[in-house]
Amino acid sequence: MEAKSPVVILNEPQLAENIGAVARVMANFGLSDLRLVRPRDGWPQERAWASASGANWPLDGAQVFERLEDAVADLRLVYATTARPRETQLPVITPREAAAELKAASEAGQGVGLLFGGERAGLETGDIALCHGIVTIPIDDRFRSLNLAQAVAINAYEWRMGVFDRPREAFAHNIAEPADMESMVGLYEQLEGQLDEAGFFHPPEKRPSMVRNLRVSLGRARFTDQEVRTWRGVITALSKGRGRVLEKLARQKAEKGEG
Amino acid sequence: MEAKSPVVILNEPQLAENIGAVARVMANFGLSDLRLVRPRDGWPQERAWASASGANWPLDGAQVFERLEDAVADLRLVYATTARPRETQLPVITPREAAAELKAASEAGQGVGLLFGGERAGLETGDIALCHGIVTIPIDDRFRSLNLAQAVAINAYEWRMGVFDRPREAFAHNIAEPADMESMVGLYEQLEGQLDEAGFFHPPEKRPSMVRNLRVSLGRARFTDQEVRTWRGVITALSKGRGRVLEKLARQKAEKGEG
Repeated sequence: MEAKSPVVILNEPQLAENIGAVARVMANFGLSDLRLVRPRDGWPQERAWASASGANWPLDGAQVFERLEDAVADLRLVYATTARPRETQLPVITPREAAAELKAASEAGQGVGLLFGGERAGLETGDIALCHGIVTIPIDDRFRSLNLAQAVAINAYEWRMGVFDRPREAFAHNIAEPADMESMVGLYEQLEGQLDEAGFFHPPEKRPSMVRNLRVSLGRARFTDQEVRTWRGVITALSKGRGRVLEKLARQKAEKGEG
Repeated sequence: MEAKSPVVILNEPQLAENIGAVARVMANFGLSDLRLVRPRDGWPQERAWASASGANWPLDGAQVFERLEDAVADLRLVYATTARPRETQLPVITPREAAAELKAASEAGQGVGLLFGGERAGLETGDIALCHGIVTIPIDDRFRSLNLAQAVAINAYEWRMGVFDRPREAFAHNIAEPADMESMVGLYEQLEGQLDEAGFFHPPEKRPSMVRNLRVSLGRARFTDQEVRTWRGVITALSKGRGRVLEKLARQKAEKGEG
């Protein structure tokens, strides 16, 4: 099956000129599917088309999302591109390694994507927690400020080099197709909701980082659809199990006249 | 001998902003020696520094030449980068192949360079004739207009990838050591014990295969010791609720007079 080019997801992009420059390099390397999460100045922005030098189709077809979770919902392999390594338990790979894995997944019919952060803020750890790996471009420590369109260009170039390279052996996952991100986020939110009820997240200010760590560690398992269903059942069973214990205890209290 | 980075030669560049953008990507990938042949608007140009985002040293040290012949005079291996193939008897290679040959020559102590044409005109055949090969970036025929700084970025990136061609060392996966199997089995058995209590495994004869599937899917996550501790806490919280929900429910029952 022919590899469908990766979706380019820009999280909170700031300058419309940069979005246009991204569209231009996407067109240069045969990418076309652009998604924008909370563009700072709204969308559409005329200056984006002005700076795309005629590469209008990624802009014309760009989808805008409020939540990153929704922007990646239909994808099954997403890499986050960052300039600096992160404190996270995700694999860190080069654009070349990422291109090879994205190609293999795409040839297997899976929707794949590349996530880029905004010009100033970059990506937050919570955004990265939704991804399956971190792509780090080997830039010089003495000057790490890489232009957004340049970061897209390097990854798009590697994608194209990989597509025109000799056919690779399929990515060595002999497991079934991984679930899409919508299913995974559904699982995460069910788990986090139950843990809220159980008073797991304390102190409250630690909840975001605790949620990130849970998502990152579980995301690495690359659950299949069937496994997502199984684990949703597991969470339900454990919570219900808790309910049983509750009732038992309530009964005991009642019998002891404490009710 | 350590490889000295290739000289970047811009032939008749037009926009100072693009010269600044070139300086920026040069700095990103550890290149510093910039040479300008007949810049259209003269030199220096303040707008170049403005668009370099602080990568001033390639601009501060930029040399200006009237003739391309003089700009490449001290170099021994120069590749011309063009978007389109040319009618010439020069070898046409990819940026990756060029980076490898530039590195080898540089390590042998030879001055090496990459030549880029101006935004509009690109390179004339006469300019290319001064070079030892043509580097063609594999861009899409449907949109061949590649930004000058992007062309420099792709080549500079390949140079750097070649110089640091030890991906596994340079980009070691930053995942901490996985927990030993004793810890994992402890986690599995806690989970399975709670699921037994919750009546999850039914029919009973299916328990062994259900347990296998749970262990296989969770095992793929390769939990660290810390993550094992976290997930043991998750299971405890889900199954016991840490007593909080418990009392709440008991209270409710009492208020509803169900006690």
